[in-house]
Amino acid sequence: MNVKLILKTLGKVLYIQAAYMTFSVAVSLYYMHHGATDESLWPFLIPIAAMLAAAVPLTALKVHNTIFNAREGMVAVALIWVTMSVFGAVPFAIHGGFGTVIDCFFESASGFSTTGASILREIEHLPKSILFWRSATHWLGGMGILVLALALFPSIGERAQNLMAAESPGPTSEKLTARISTSSKILYAIYTGLTLAQIICLLLAGLGLYDAVVTALATAGTGGFSVMNASMAGYSNVAAEVVTTVFMGLFGINFTVFFLLITGQLRKAFRNSELLLYLGSILGAITLIALNIYSMYGSLGETLRYASFNAVSVITTTGFSNCDFARWPTFSHFVLVLLMLMGASAGSTGGGIKGSRVLILLKSVVREIKRLVTPKRVSVLRMNGKPVPETTVTNTLVFTAVYALIALGATLIVSACEQAPGYDFTTNVTAIISCLSNIGPALGRVAGPAGNYAGFSQVSKLVLSVCMLTGRLEIFPMIVLLTPATWKNASLRK
Amino acid sequence: MNVKLILKTLGKVLYIQAAYMTFSVAVSLYYMHHGATDESLWPFLIPIAAMLAAAVPLTALKVHNTIFNAREGMVAVALIWVTMSVFGAVPFAIHGGFGTVIDCFFESASGFSTTGASILREIEHLPKSILFWRSATHWLGGMGILVLALALFPSIGERAQNLMAAESPGPTSEKLTARISTSSKILYAIYTGLTLAQIICLLLAGLGLYDAVVTALATAGTGGFSVMNASMAGYSNVAAEVVTTVFMGLFGINFTVFFLLITGQLRKAFRNSELLLYLGSILGAITLIALNIYSMYGSLGETLRYASFNAVSVITTTGFSNCDFARWPTFSHFVLVLLMLMGASAGSTGGGIKGSRVLILLKSVVREIKRLVTPKRVSVLRMNGKPVPETTVTNTLVFTAVYALIALGATLIVSACEQAPGYDFTTNVTAIISCLSNIGPALGRVAGPAGNYAGFSQVSKLVLSVCMLTGRLEIFPMIVLLTPATWKNASLRK
Repeated sequence: MNVKLILKTLGKVLYIQAAYMTFSVAVSLYYMHHGATDESLWPFLIPIAAMLAAAVPLTALKVHNTIFNAREGMVAVALIWVTMSVFGAVPFAIHGGFGTVIDCFFESASGFSTTGASILREIEHLPKSILFWRSATHWLGGMGILVLALALFPSIGERAQNLMAAESPGPTSEKLTARISTSSKILYAIYTGLTLAQIICLLLAGLGLYDAVVTALATAGTGGFSVMNASMAGYSNVAAEVVTTVFMGLFGINFTVFFLLITGQLRKAFRNSELLLYLGSILGAITLIALNIYSMYGSLGETLRYASFNAVSVITTTGFSNCDFARWPTFSHFVLVLLMLMGASAGSTGGGIKGSRVLILLKSVVREIKRLVTPKRVSVLRMNGKPVPETTVTNTLVFTAVYALIALGATLIVSACEQAPGYDFTTNVTAIISCLSNIGPALGRVAGPAGNYAGFSQVSKLVLSVCMLTGRLEIFPMIVLLTPATWKNASLRK
Repeated sequence: MNVKLILKTLGKVLYIQAAYMTFSVAVSLYYMHHGATDESLWPFLIPIAAMLAAAVPLTALKVHNTIFNAREGMVAVALIWVTMSVFGAVPFAIHGGFGTVIDCFFESASGFSTTGASILREIEHLPKSILFWRSATHWLGGMGILVLALALFPSIGERAQNLMAAESPGPTSEKLTARISTSSKILYAIYTGLTLAQIICLLLAGLGLYDAVVTALATAGTGGFSVMNASMAGYSNVAAEVVTTVFMGLFGINFTVFFLLITGQLRKAFRNSELLLYLGSILGAITLIALNIYSMYGSLGETLRYASFNAVSVITTTGFSNCDFARWPTFSHFVLVLLMLMGASAGSTGGGIKGSRVLILLKSVVREIKRLVTPKRVSVLRMNGKPVPETTVTNTLVFTAVYALIALGATLIVSACEQAPGYDFTTNVTAIISCLSNIGPALGRVAGPAGNYAGFSQVSKLVLSVCMLTGRLEIFPMIVLLTPATWKNASLRK
């Protein structure tokens, strides 16, 4: 284990995070200038100073071997994300309105992992700069800080695709171009472009600049933090809801599709079975939910407004809501749980098991049945016409099994910690799935779209925080980080 | 597809089922003789006549090729189990107290699949012979009618291990002896011996002969039908509860272990990782539940009485209850769900995913993590010191995935059909898991230990019936039966 290389990379990332936090300083200065009395620079200046103080010695480390192997890529990414979440929590801790240290870490991990689960009961009275930072964590977490580091520091190390693979969602990480730093730049360019497009659309829909920006940051990362207590419902702005529905949908698509569209490879862009599954699932879910809730709302317009917004919000794992879907019937709840489990596309900013994994899973089931019916035929799995390596198939099956095992284990701990009446089977199970899939709201009264995670015990909040980061990094990096065997031959001397 | 061979086998099995039903005729005659006015022979004589009428032409079929391949084994077993459940429902239909035809099929499929879920709201007023038949279906379904057929008709076909493999629970079917018919005889001998031992113990505990017999039949098959409305609680007999706890535990063990014990291979019997997992899970679950419910009951004796009975009842997928565990806290519910999912041991009469599959799953997860940490090492999975073939590992992973997919799909249909208030997320999900794992009671008010499945819609009952049979046959035989490709080259002429 090349610990020095990992620590040096961590140092570079801390520079980026410190620079990124200065946006919040600017927001704070702006609102101070406009007479806000609750603003302060200390919540940002102190962590910025701390990050710089840590980054200077770390980046000064002499590293002889700059090659990332797969294991080091995973350890680096997991370590960086935990560290990033710790520093990201400092503004909340200094502000003081976020409860205990664990509560602050929960909120920060929820932000970077783009979960959007909150421990805040009351949001609207908080300083604008703090809420800006809260939403900004989504944007950085959505596309990933290491992808940004690869774009900014092309010389971060050799075989940096192992970093990219560990941070990017999906069973395989596709290369847009031969050079990994060019790919990273393209990804961030598309990401920034789409975010700006949403800000403009939200301004046209009638939202103020601040609200448009924080909403777009949270949408782009498929995060879900809102600056309103009632989430999107707080704006009572149907146009803004429609804009957000469309952009949530876009950010749940594999960014390779956008790259292909921009470079004119239309046929290749649309010959993508994951995209078809994703769009089909959205349309199917909206139809099923609409039929189920029509009698609650009466008009087709209202029905489609709520069905489409919440279905897209859940499948993309954003977690915004424009109504309290906890009041919907069981059938709609279950459709939402299915969307939760599947999640968005590989290579998007969304979470969950991912469409491509679901496809590999379904195809391997069909193959196993074929093997039972006609035992002699050996067949290779194909996706979009290309064969899928057997290691990817096994990894996908094991991924799903580990996902389920972690969900079960975490639910056991949370169930043991929560004895109050509201924390029933549905609440605990869906809170864990929601955090592991980086969605945000759960089913049930407590942590539903009209609720929050404030009432969970400290142990549960820590478990949920670990679930959020584990889910964002797609499980294996966090497991490798925590596996003792990983550290057996680790030494700073090497 | 050798349809003739399958139909001829079906014919032989119908003879066995007809013969088995005569026990109920005897019970009916006995109680008629003792003055029961609600007894009638028609509910049994009519289906016996129908089965014989069908069996005569089927067994007369001329079959040239008597070799069962794996596919034919699965199709035969699935077809036979569906047919058996249909004929098994006739006594309920003729009696008339079981509702619609689908209700009768539900009760029969629930019996043979050893689920023990009932559509009866009121049990105790039914004729003793009908309730005897209901319990007797558990016993035949527990060890399997094809295992019995192999014991009785050694010449049923070549490669009959493919029949045995399709009917016996677990990822692999072990051979006790070189000859499959000898193995079947040994299995039924152990099975009968243990059942008789339980009857004797229950008599000593103070139960009447009839109650001892029906309770033992339902315990042996890990079924769970009781002749009391309140299940085991109806007897208020602690000794009978202890006896039943012990025997439920025994019937959840791989019968190979008993064979090894009887033949003096003690060390081999206990060097069985599935057995250790099974016993460890039971002890762990009892401890966790006892700690959680102690405050509800106050005394250690009562606490252990309810914790141990229900934990063993759920992990062995029997489904008896001696209290209404729907009133327990969420944590205990979740422990029960974990036991539900794992289920009993391979080669036992219990259902669920099975301990050995859970072990293979856990080991393949550990292997995948090792592969990520040290990519160059290729390792073979081992169970009890023996290597597990890769096809078994893949099959286990796919089995678990299909189990989850079927559970999700079935819950979607059931949620769409049930709109009444009691049918919430917890009820629907756990009812499906309960049926798929052949347990019986679910969580929630409706289908909990104090409830029943009467209120579900006809569509849901059909879905649940299919789930029960699919779960008992461990999914693949039912899927192969229903796959069109299976029937492409099927012809009676061949």
